[in-house]
Amino acid sequence: MANNIAKKASGGSMFHIGRMSTVDLGEETINTEEQDLVKLRPSEIPHNEKLLSLKYESLDYDNSENQLFLEEERRMSPMMSGNQSLVHLWPHRPPDRTHCLLHRRRGGVPGWKKYEAVKHYIDKFTEDGGLSVSLLLWAILNSAFVMVGAILVAFFEPIAAGSGIPQIKCYLNGVKIPRVVRLKTLLVKVCGVICSVAGGLAVGKEGPMIHSGAVVAAGVSQGRSTSLKKDFKIFEYFRRDTEKRDFVSAGAAAGVSAAFGAPVGGVLFSLEEGASFWNQMLTWRIFFASMISTFTLNFFMTIYKGKPGEFSNPGLINFGRFDSENVEYNLYEIPLFIVMGAIGGLLGALFNVLNYWLTIFRIRYLHRRCLQVMEAMLVAAVSAAVSFAMIYFSSDCQPFKKDSQEEYPLQLFCADGEYNAMATAFFNTPEKSVTSLFHSPPGTYNPPTLALFTLAYFLLAFWTYGLTVSAGVFIPSLLIGAAWGRLFGILLSLLFPSKNTIWADPGKYALMGAAAQLGGIVRMTLSLTVILVEATGNVTYGLPIMLVLMTAKIVGDYFIEGLYDVHIRLQSVPFLHSEAPATSHWLTAREVMSSPVTSFNKIEKVGTIVDVLSATSTNHNGFPVVVNSGTDNESGRLCGLILRSQLIVLLKHKVFVERMRSQQNRRRLQLKDFRDAYPRFPPIQSIHVSQDERECLMDLQEFMNPTPYTVPEETSLPRVFKLFRALGLRHLMVVDDVNRVIGLVTRKDLARYHMGKHGLEEMDLAHA
Amino acid sequence: MANNIAKKASGGSMFHIGRMSTVDLGEETINTEEQDLVKLRPSEIPHNEKLLSLKYESLDYDNSENQLFLEEERRMSPMMSGNQSLVHLWPHRPPDRTHCLLHRRRGGVPGWKKYEAVKHYIDKFTEDGGLSVSLLLWAILNSAFVMVGAILVAFFEPIAAGSGIPQIKCYLNGVKIPRVVRLKTLLVKVCGVICSVAGGLAVGKEGPMIHSGAVVAAGVSQGRSTSLKKDFKIFEYFRRDTEKRDFVSAGAAAGVSAAFGAPVGGVLFSLEEGASFWNQMLTWRIFFASMISTFTLNFFMTIYKGKPGEFSNPGLINFGRFDSENVEYNLYEIPLFIVMGAIGGLLGALFNVLNYWLTIFRIRYLHRRCLQVMEAMLVAAVSAAVSFAMIYFSSDCQPFKKDSQEEYPLQLFCADGEYNAMATAFFNTPEKSVTSLFHSPPGTYNPPTLALFTLAYFLLAFWTYGLTVSAGVFIPSLLIGAAWGRLFGILLSLLFPSKNTIWADPGKYALMGAAAQLGGIVRMTLSLTVILVEATGNVTYGLPIMLVLMTAKIVGDYFIEGLYDVHIRLQSVPFLHSEAPATSHWLTAREVMSSPVTSFNKIEKVGTIVDVLSATSTNHNGFPVVVNSGTDNESGRLCGLILRSQLIVLLKHKVFVERMRSQQNRRRLQLKDFRDAYPRFPPIQSIHVSQDERECLMDLQEFMNPTPYTVPEETSLPRVFKLFRALGLRHLMVVDDVNRVIGLVTRKDLARYHMGKHGLEEMDLAHA
Repeated sequence: MANNIAKKASGGSMFHIGRMSTVDLGEETINTEEQDLVKLRPSEIPHNEKLLSLKYESLDYDNSENQLFLEEERRMSPMMSGNQSLVHLWPHRPPDRTHCLLHRRRGGVPGWKKYEAVKHYIDKFTEDGGLSVSLLLWAILNSAFVMVGAILVAFFEPIAAGSGIPQIKCYLNGVKIPRVVRLKTLLVKVCGVICSVAGGLAVGKEGPMIHSGAVVAAGVSQGRSTSLKKDFKIFEYFRRDTEKRDFVSAGAAAGVSAAFGAPVGGVLFSLEEGASFWNQMLTWRIFFASMISTFTLNFFMTIYKGKPGEFSNPGLINFGRFDSENVEYNLYEIPLFIVMGAIGGLLGALFNVLNYWLTIFRIRYLHRRCLQVMEAMLVAAVSAAVSFAMIYFSSDCQPFKKDSQEEYPLQLFCADGEYNAMATAFFNTPEKSVTSLFHSPPGTYNPPTLALFTLAYFLLAFWTYGLTVSAGVFIPSLLIGAAWGRLFGILLSLLFPSKNTIWADPGKYALMGAAAQLGGIVRMTLSLTVILVEATGNVTYGLPIMLVLMTAKIVGDYFIEGLYDVHIRLQSVPFLHSEAPATSHWLTAREVMSSPVTSFNKIEKVGTIVDVLSATSTNHNGFPVVVNSGTDNESGRLCGLILRSQLIVLLKHKVFVERMRSQQNRRRLQLKDFRDAYPRFPPIQSIHVSQDERECLMDLQEFMNPTPYTVPEETSLPRVFKLFRALGLRHLMVVDDVNRVIGLVTRKDLARYHMGKHGLEEMDLAHA
Repeated sequence: MANNIAKKASGGSMFHIGRMSTVDLGEETINTEEQDLVKLRPSEIPHNEKLLSLKYESLDYDNSENQLFLEEERRMSPMMSGNQSLVHLWPHRPPDRTHCLLHRRRGGVPGWKKYEAVKHYIDKFTEDGGLSVSLLLWAILNSAFVMVGAILVAFFEPIAAGSGIPQIKCYLNGVKIPRVVRLKTLLVKVCGVICSVAGGLAVGKEGPMIHSGAVVAAGVSQGRSTSLKKDFKIFEYFRRDTEKRDFVSAGAAAGVSAAFGAPVGGVLFSLEEGASFWNQMLTWRIFFASMISTFTLNFFMTIYKGKPGEFSNPGLINFGRFDSENVEYNLYEIPLFIVMGAIGGLLGALFNVLNYWLTIFRIRYLHRRCLQVMEAMLVAAVSAAVSFAMIYFSSDCQPFKKDSQEEYPLQLFCADGEYNAMATAFFNTPEKSVTSLFHSPPGTYNPPTLALFTLAYFLLAFWTYGLTVSAGVFIPSLLIGAAWGRLFGILLSLLFPSKNTIWADPGKYALMGAAAQLGGIVRMTLSLTVILVEATGNVTYGLPIMLVLMTAKIVGDYFIEGLYDVHIRLQSVPFLHSEAPATSHWLTAREVMSSPVTSFNKIEKVGTIVDVLSATSTNHNGFPVVVNSGTDNESGRLCGLILRSQLIVLLKHKVFVERMRSQQNRRRLQLKDFRDAYPRFPPIQSIHVSQDERECLMDLQEFMNPTPYTVPEETSLPRVFKLFRALGLRHLMVVDDVNRVIGLVTRKDLARYHMGKHGLEEMDLAHA
């Protein structure tokens, strides 16, 4: 039973990938399992992070240097220079235009239509006393927006849920997450995030933007769309996993670059979150892409804002500049920053733990799509109600100043000439609220307002993350942190009044709080420092920000890993961390590998190949090719590696020895044929092989990778791990001392081992 | 004959490594060769970059996982957590204190003693008309300083010459440059750079600072000094190449961080210049080190400046803040920036080409130490004379303003109430001059002054780089660039007067020019962008700086590689670039490898081992261990890899099978014994082995690396390259299909191939 539940838990997915299969199980199964679950006590709740899902495949990052490849390279050599310049300068404008477009639409909806209406009604009903109508109106409007977004995500493309960063992180790690870089995902993501932001949820649009950047990059690099059945016949060279992954890392960097106006931060984000296979050349290309991205955005933003040519909008978010007079900090503030970092780490860990339990609850009970949509609508309504209640009961009316930076200083329930501070925090777009918390002059917000706001937004944000909507966690985290950071600053100045003017501006503490909270939740350090420095346009605070982020990471890591890692673990993705678990040197390849291995002969019967590929129980993707002739001693020796996708293409084109002989002038298969089939190779079932053809032979020598990487069976786990990860392998052959294949190491075999509380632990493999 | 010359050219070194051996050749040889050289026409000048020196060894970055290692790890497992935290938080304060100390002394000498005296005499003699005395005084003072520095470098530690960045770059690439991270090198470097800066040469102190950081890190990580014969018995775990290299990368980052106040730039510098073996964990540690570095510096600087606690001095150089009002730029300035980038690329390429020829001249004719010292003194005297002449003939007298930022507005030959602009540019420390060019109000410098200054400083700088003194090229490049950049800005406002106020401030163009010039010379992009942004404290110019740096790199790369790479090539270092040359897939391991290979049996006679190690003709550092028993078929199969250093330790401790048997309670050898011998393993000649002992046997199984990485002989060069570089290997075994060793690939075998003008070219190996 426990196994059953575990499977279920892993199947009903956080990323909503396994949705179809769960539904296919039928009502009956689900009901039985639900009854089982009810009987479980909390302590018996299955920890599905002990499982590793088998449904994720690796990317083929390793180049298969078969004869076709060598021939093509020889052909290309004379025209190398032209091609290289193509590789150098990827055209990366498209992602940015998209971002640009998104922004305009997103910025528009919350700022104008909805609040206009609500404000009108509130103004009207404040006089009449019938406030319930405006609350209802507000809640319904929000829920309607969110419903559209949730339906889109739940019914059309579940992978578009959430921020997309965990998925991109997995992809960059080398895991093939199904449908993560498809056009449909992009469309749903874009529409979904507009709906969630317009629906007033506690979400940001930066994570989705990073995901969008990655999708656009993956699409552009392929020069075609399989969804639209349109092939532009360009960039055919890039049609393989290696190139596509490099493009995706550049796209993610361009996304960060456009979202925060942080090109260097974008490069570092790709590096920190996905630095599996990295080299100098890639850095330099990604940097170029990021630069063009922020440049293009800047250009269109200036046109949009009516000041063409003045570059001052490097990113969608602009947290505003800190004035150069106030950007000093003092030695005795350093301990305070460290304390803030620790608070951020604690709050972040709390956020992650709460969200972890909530996610497990969701996986178990909220696996039906309608339930998911309803939950999203409920959250939208509650968000509206909470903010309404907070604004209503808030007595924080501030006199309206002329030089105020508020774009929407809402009067609401305040007297004339005053505006409601709580409403400013709740009613504006989250980005505006963050800027307001950073830069508003001292006294703009009362401590109780900030405390209440922090509490309410914290609860809303942790409830919201993981909903079936497209939404990011960056901005909510920054907002929570800015609120308690400002509170921290105000309390400081109350505790030690007029001791020094350095306390005077709580905006500095708001910035540190924002950094601490975000760092505590996502645990990025280097890239986040640079992103925040670039987004605030201020280098002086770089040092304290680093300090705060490091403290937050150290404190937070003590309790639980970062939010993205939590979700990756819950999804049972075979994610390879940067190093093998410590003290695992005594484990050898022999213990780690999968065996026995299904291998093919150099010249193999078509029937055998079809049978092996059709076997659902194994479903292997790579097969060693071995020598079958010669003495006993020689037989079984490794001579190459062939992939399922290659075999499928060979079968499809019926590249059989007999046919090749009979038709002398038959066109030889080229790499182009493999590229055309990429990335959606047909399943073996769709390929018809007649009974006669089953008796034919296939010569694999020309197509296999003749020199796959191998390790001897005594190789230790860290050594295997290092080789596997450094080269981005998918299959690593384990051979004995006469070069006979005795096993195969794949990603799952390595990801299974991790450091638990009691030393090295091994996870089970789940087929769900 | 050509061969002879080539050897010579490679022996007389840029880094002054091979000095001793050249001198040992004796006068006779040198004279013959010089006569030969005279007959050569310019076109016949030997291109010694076609040679690859065999004197450089690789680092052992790959861990030898022998039984000792596994046992130690098993022992360490229970106390793992404590140790890990040790590994996490390297103590990195020492480098920063050193930097701090350096700065105070360096800042002091040029600012105070010398200029005081010269100014006094000039003031005096301007009235008397006897100016030649003051010129003489100045030139003698400068030459004296430089002489001390040059003698230190030439006679005590030639490796301390130059900026040290090429050497550190090689070290991070995995090349063991002799003596590069020794205490003596640090001392000579520090004293040398003080002398060069005080001697008024066109040099900076930032490169040496990066080298110093690396040395300090390497020293601290070892917990002992072999030079001082002091062992603190700490950090013994770090006594191997792998750990030391990681520390050196952190030290270099800390050096950048302290020099420019750029912690993120420091991390990126280590990444961009040395990203051979990189992982997330290392990034995060290096980031921590950089942060502590800039922090410590900041702390001591504030105390030094008398404002304890106010953190506003993140780096030694402070280029000053750009005011927030003037930091806008406009769309139509973008093409101008690109043009500036192109100019920078061209001038940088010119600089590199000139310096390249000069270096070849120096290698050939200036190989004697006294000549080198004399050249350095000559340069110092000429520098003094040139600046004196420029100041004397300059008529650029500017009225003295009260709010001027000049710390030393020298009156010199100007009327009262005015100061000499040329003198300001020449007489201040280069750092001050750069700041002045960036921030002085429009009209401070006349165009002719700037043009003359650019020309003079360009010539002086290219002559100076490569002298036998410790000196960096960062600041001179920035200064040249700032001068012509400012000139560019002034010319713009003259050409298009009062069209727009955006031209008004030439400081912006000075910054772009500085970036372009430095980028054109050293060809860094990502890290240099961040360093400049952090050093100027301004994010807005990040985008144009990137653009300028990229253009400079693209334009410059068209002509010649970066200055550091030029010097690495001239030094014939087997440097591995990030990727194998394109279109080299048809080369296989069989063609690339060295063979035959000297291998040992698992149980080998001591005499054989001593003989092999003593053989001067081969001088191998790694030996395959093969199976010697069994049938013919099995014999020769690879079963491990043992290093020369390991064999030396074994011989020293006389770990012979017979002795082990006779003394049952003899202490077994531990990893500690190997670590104690690190890094200066004694030469084989110093180990005495008696005739009886030669007949003993040694069991290598326990000490060898049982699972070295191997490749089959058909593996292509790029595949071998990728494996080699990604894992930081030193030896890669090539095996046939029954696992018999048929060859060995080392760094030289891979570095030999490079893309030349006519496709793939192969370099010769030089034993010099």
